[in-house]
Amino acid sequence: MLPPKKTIGIIGGGQLGKMLIEAGQPWNIRYNILEQDNAPAKDIANHYIVGSLQDADKIKALAKLSDVLTYEIEHINTEALLELEAQGHKIIPSPKILSIIQDKGLQKLFFKQHNIPSSPFELVEHVSEWPQKMANLKGQKVAAKLRKGGYDGKGVELVNKADIEQGQIPFDGPVVLEEFVENAIELSVIVARNEAGDVKTFPTVEMAFDPKANLVDILFAPANISQAIDTQAKSIAQSCIEHLNGVGIFAVEMFLNQSGEVLVNEIAPRPHNSGHHTIEACYTSQYEQLNRILLGMPLGDTQLIQASAMMNILGFENVSGPYEMTGLEHILNLPGVFVHLYNKAETKPMRKMGHITIMGQDLHEVMQKLQTVKQHLGMKAAS
Amino acid sequence: MLPPKKTIGIIGGGQLGKMLIEAGQPWNIRYNILEQDNAPAKDIANHYIVGSLQDADKIKALAKLSDVLTYEIEHINTEALLELEAQGHKIIPSPKILSIIQDKGLQKLFFKQHNIPSSPFELVEHVSEWPQKMANLKGQKVAAKLRKGGYDGKGVELVNKADIEQGQIPFDGPVVLEEFVENAIELSVIVARNEAGDVKTFPTVEMAFDPKANLVDILFAPANISQAIDTQAKSIAQSCIEHLNGVGIFAVEMFLNQSGEVLVNEIAPRPHNSGHHTIEACYTSQYEQLNRILLGMPLGDTQLIQASAMMNILGFENVSGPYEMTGLEHILNLPGVFVHLYNKAETKPMRKMGHITIMGQDLHEVMQKLQTVKQHLGMKAAS
Repeated sequence: MLPPKKTIGIIGGGQLGKMLIEAGQPWNIRYNILEQDNAPAKDIANHYIVGSLQDADKIKALAKLSDVLTYEIEHINTEALLELEAQGHKIIPSPKILSIIQDKGLQKLFFKQHNIPSSPFELVEHVSEWPQKMANLKGQKVAAKLRKGGYDGKGVELVNKADIEQGQIPFDGPVVLEEFVENAIELSVIVARNEAGDVKTFPTVEMAFDPKANLVDILFAPANISQAIDTQAKSIAQSCIEHLNGVGIFAVEMFLNQSGEVLVNEIAPRPHNSGHHTIEACYTSQYEQLNRILLGMPLGDTQLIQASAMMNILGFENVSGPYEMTGLEHILNLPGVFVHLYNKAETKPMRKMGHITIMGQDLHEVMQKLQTVKQHLGMKAAS
Repeated sequence: MLPPKKTIGIIGGGQLGKMLIEAGQPWNIRYNILEQDNAPAKDIANHYIVGSLQDADKIKALAKLSDVLTYEIEHINTEALLELEAQGHKIIPSPKILSIIQDKGLQKLFFKQHNIPSSPFELVEHVSEWPQKMANLKGQKVAAKLRKGGYDGKGVELVNKADIEQGQIPFDGPVVLEEFVENAIELSVIVARNEAGDVKTFPTVEMAFDPKANLVDILFAPANISQAIDTQAKSIAQSCIEHLNGVGIFAVEMFLNQSGEVLVNEIAPRPHNSGHHTIEACYTSQYEQLNRILLGMPLGDTQLIQASAMMNILGFENVSGPYEMTGLEHILNLPGVFVHLYNKAETKPMRKMGHITIMGQDLHEVMQKLQTVKQHLGMKAAS
């Protein structure tokens, strides 16, 4: 029977979990979540286990109540998931993949092993090794990433070699140092792969980052790239997931460098910020696609219906705590503009509070609406 | 603040209520519902009052817990709502409008009073009056409708004058008899009007009825009509709602007769079957639009993104009780095909169990996909 009457357990109840649940409601899918108190998804989950994402007992309790488990964040107790998988619980994507992805060093080794194009790197265990390892990389700047625990721009620093030589070392845990890709265009391809091995890629998107926040601010779909680059990006992204033998939804973030080469940056084994626009702009959203995969249903068509942009609503610099959005009365007047709010009671600077998707006949029309959105969107402390 | 943190109370928890709630989740709107046990919306409402839609006490309890009330069905306790409105509770649409609409005789008198084109009619109080009143109407057939209580094709009969003269009278309550519009094309325009008096119409749709079920089976948007007829249909629909001073979402069902005249059939003061496709096919759905109106937000743009069709999934003739849908694995493979299931545990012949929206570049592409959908969709008793 399709859709099957099954219960999905989600480790994490943030905005990605919330939107996964929203996507499942036309099919009456049931969801359990595990999350700290006051999660964005709390009001719409059918059952809510309050607890730490590291708590093996809570994860096992979630598994017991669910037909299949997934996760919407990487920083969770992988050992507990490996144990559950060994006992026969269905976990998508497999925690074996999560073990690789949640360690940015292992990710880079995986790319190297499978000849997946990616920028040269060095692994560093101790602070003392930094200058020597860094010297093996070209350029004046190096991207330094904590191997584990980074999220939403935290745990990633762009450093100057000169500063490192003077002892200004930002992290003291195990780190991966990568050659910095100068003036790169950042691309992302979301890949869906099911248990039968069927694969579909979503249209390539182009990301524009806010240098202050170090996380994606605006993205455009389709990306403004040649057909050849587009094909290359999709092919590389698909090959990553096939080499991982991955089942689920994966975001493959890539750099297009000035020589026209596509280099993989990182993989996320879950729905991703660079796929929010798919809710309205594609026939099948990344969230519906994951539901299909979790329930053993056929993959949906991923084509783009119209040109689109997605803008994160980030917490404003000067507001913390309870807040109000302002200007939405102007934004909601625009045709083809969709506002998603993440049910967060409090804001802080740069926190992801929601997103806005903009659709139009072409990117020119989309950009015009985007300007109006940016002009009006505001945030203030709650009165 | 937009969207405001308000709670909407819905009288009725059927599929229309369910889809209204689904539309509000990206904005974290809270919903209370009043419905008999096992309502389609039960799993996704924030609070669920179990009771009859006629129970004044339950309706008052719902009002007490909600900032604004709406309803997704006409057959409810209007007196209780009139009382609540007089006490200052916000009810959208006003129960004064509901009092007119839920009596098909008053509806016809309203059309006549405001020169809204509609087929000639007679009101009948007693069975004895039928032959005489019927003689005032042209044609061999008459559409006979119970003034109150009809729904989804029940309480409506197409009768032959000859049968009536022989005493075969189908209803014995107060009835409206209408001249039957021969070979009519059935159109529907959904009208949104907010408290500020702003009005927007959704694109005109064309309905194809299943003669067995007497309720809409398939609709197409855009309707295959001339620009002039389209403009006329929208103008008449808008004028109906303005004359009613209606605030809310209203479906205006119309006949296009063989002379090219547009005649109003009936108005529904709620989201309507003929607007399900707007969830995916329009920038703003009828459900989001009603949420906007209920919360005092600006009306959204109603333009059609692509050509579309909507097909009701009706309970199959030979299946009753617990059931399974079959063939969905083929249907879900089609691009631009969206399946909505109404969370009903049991089927019966012709019961509305869900709907399927189909989008495409043009109606030709949509029709091709529709054929594939019809070919595969099946239903069987649960194994």
